[in-house]
Amino acid sequence: MMRPYVIVNCAMTPDGKIAGRERRQVRISSQEDLERVKKLRASCDAILIGIGTVLADDPHLTVKDLPPEKNPLRVVLDSNGRTPDHAKILNQNAQTLIATSEDCKKTWKNAEVVRFGKGRVDIEQLLSYLYSKGVRKLLVEGGGEVIWSFFKEDFIDRYCVFIGDFVLGGRDAPTPVEGDGFPDHQPFRLKLIDVERLGNGILLIYEAARNVE
Amino acid sequence: MMRPYVIVNCAMTPDGKIAGRERRQVRISSQEDLERVKKLRASCDAILIGIGTVLADDPHLTVKDLPPEKNPLRVVLDSNGRTPDHAKILNQNAQTLIATSEDCKKTWKNAEVVRFGKGRVDIEQLLSYLYSKGVRKLLVEGGGEVIWSFFKEDFIDRYCVFIGDFVLGGRDAPTPVEGDGFPDHQPFRLKLIDVERLGNGILLIYEAARNVE
Repeated sequence: MMRPYVIVNCAMTPDGKIAGRERRQVRISSQEDLERVKKLRASCDAILIGIGTVLADDPHLTVKDLPPEKNPLRVVLDSNGRTPDHAKILNQNAQTLIATSEDCKKTWKNAEVVRFGKGRVDIEQLLSYLYSKGVRKLLVEGGGEVIWSFFKEDFIDRYCVFIGDFVLGGRDAPTPVEGDGFPDHQPFRLKLIDVERLGNGILLIYEAARNVE
Repeated sequence: MMRPYVIVNCAMTPDGKIAGRERRQVRISSQEDLERVKKLRASCDAILIGIGTVLADDPHLTVKDLPPEKNPLRVVLDSNGRTPDHAKILNQNAQTLIATSEDCKKTWKNAEVVRFGKGRVDIEQLLSYLYSKGVRKLLVEGGGEVIWSFFKEDFIDRYCVFIGDFVLGGRDAPTPVEGDGFPDHQPFRLKLIDVERLGNGILLIYEAARNVE
């Protein structure tokens, strides 16, 4: 199967949280990291987030200063079609693709809709479709359940994590990779390929071990 | 109040987990990191863990090759006196202090017992007591609930976290700092003071912001 190269990018606290116990968006990235993420987004053909992130944060997911035709395709993983009609991700500043399961009938103005899989979006089919549309580099931004789906099915090539400078704590606070988790004896192996100090925090870049071994 | 300088040391995955969904001990540290931890332990006057870690991992908590009289004092935070009589932490290779709440009556062979606080161990009183016994440097090794108690009460001076090279995932997998967590607007501020590559992973050392500002 041909699929895009898949990059995960996220920011967490030194105690492994992407948000606090309130599960609201918290700025963890330094200014320098925000600049890096902007460049990373601009270098990708598409940016994918889950419906949970759409509902929680309502991001526009566009790269500032880029004209609509140069902006990466915005992709929402939305099995049950819950993206609100007025979500910012549906604005005119970039193209949008909403991926639902085959059971969903919902349509949206300003968005292309594809339906893959029963009950939940079939990610393999979606990746194959994205590749056929010319997407060679896909950025997956979250949340943790979406990132887990990609890890679980072995579709991750690169994992970039910025680590900030404050502890949030919380046994229920979200982490970068959620879902059921891997069994202890079968984790997803990575290789640390770059470390960069960015302001008050540090960026770690890992490549999937299968890509470098 | 006079108290020891408190260091937290832990190892987590690049997705913020100290163990997998099964909550069993998983080796995340590289060989180089294990060597570092050994030296760190030897440099401390006491090492503290929670009863959860005693019950889950039954660690002996001694530094290999050190004679009993040179080994750091082992301290167990054990509000309800649940440390088993045959726990390895009660062996003769180092001294042991078990801290319970005032309500607990349990005693152990080979361990000094102190009782502070109603229902839960009063950490401030325990730290003050440890200081009075000559403990100037205390290493807190976990688990996440114990580390949270120390963060919550503002008793952390240094936070050392080794980050390994595999992802475990899991919304219920334990993280370095658990408990209720801080409100978003009142996190515990740190300052990154050192970064060191150690084999297949990386060590980040943070100092409490209050100590360096």
